[in-house]
Amino acid sequence: MNELQKRIVAEGKVLPGDIIKIDGFMNHRVDVALMRSIAKDIRAHFADKEITAIMTVEASGIPVATITADEFGVPLIFAKKAKSDNIEGGLVKSEIFSYTYRKKVTLIVSAEWLKPTDKVLIVDDFMANGEAIRGLVEIIDQVGAELVGIGIAVEKGFQGGGDRLRAKGIDVYSLAIVEKAEPGNIVFRE
Amino acid sequence: MNELQKRIVAEGKVLPGDIIKIDGFMNHRVDVALMRSIAKDIRAHFADKEITAIMTVEASGIPVATITADEFGVPLIFAKKAKSDNIEGGLVKSEIFSYTYRKKVTLIVSAEWLKPTDKVLIVDDFMANGEAIRGLVEIIDQVGAELVGIGIAVEKGFQGGGDRLRAKGIDVYSLAIVEKAEPGNIVFRE
Repeated sequence: MNELQKRIVAEGKVLPGDIIKIDGFMNHRVDVALMRSIAKDIRAHFADKEITAIMTVEASGIPVATITADEFGVPLIFAKKAKSDNIEGGLVKSEIFSYTYRKKVTLIVSAEWLKPTDKVLIVDDFMANGEAIRGLVEIIDQVGAELVGIGIAVEKGFQGGGDRLRAKGIDVYSLAIVEKAEPGNIVFRE
Repeated sequence: MNELQKRIVAEGKVLPGDIIKIDGFMNHRVDVALMRSIAKDIRAHFADKEITAIMTVEASGIPVATITADEFGVPLIFAKKAKSDNIEGGLVKSEIFSYTYRKKVTLIVSAEWLKPTDKVLIVDDFMANGEAIRGLVEIIDQVGAELVGIGIAVEKGFQGGGDRLRAKGIDVYSLAIVEKAEPGNIVFRE
């Protein structure tokens, strides 16, 4: 097991609804040293690729994506979740279904800040059904930028989002792919 | 002028409603190298203080707060904005008025992850009326943790939030205090 997997086993809690609660080090009180270790792993996996920007969605993916951008020495772009009164020009949008909030959410990125020349690595803390990531991929496609790959800390393998993206030929690299999550029994994909 | 101030003058846009738009390097496409420079300045200002955690609010303050936490070698805690259907125990809350969204917003932090023994430095990208910061200070007080100080990238000095906190004896360190913002004429406090 790698460092992240050990922390999930030691400190994670499995809650009803297949929720893996790791907010003590991943997405509420954030262990930035662990984010650095995750970023180095992602960097190593994509070492031979040219990358000009890291991209994520607000909010909980931002810490790991920021440290990954620091590790690559490139800017971070984070997509925003549209507020209802947000009417502004020059925006690229994608509508996704948020399983967390059980409603449709529109992801937006300013066309001014994601350029057709960008070679983008998507980074996020979690991937389950992969809706947020699908939205980011759609935005990158709309702009005409290049998707280099996807780096994820924790993938819920049993929900299929990562494998659907892999089936399309996208390089999805996850540090911890959880295949089974029950209280006291978290199993990772080999 | 320091590096941040130069970037604000060179790339910032002043929009109606005293909005200083610097989303090309601060809070949409984020220049992580600039965040490092800001973090080093904040670190230097609070160099003789003991700090165990950096604290911010989701979402746009997270990049600069993450790099500052990395610089200090301590964890990052980010307060969440409550969703209406969020009913969970063990939460510390503070109600603030969001001038961005023109409505009340409740900031929440899990009591599990902000401890009475924490010595906290608040870090954020912007401070205007200081409502978000006031909410964080209230949460730190409720928990019984220690507020060491506040590090801000861009303070809108003319909106008074920073000076109200300084008047209470809090060490508020801002890299760019904007005293006047008109198109083509941004003036910083000396």
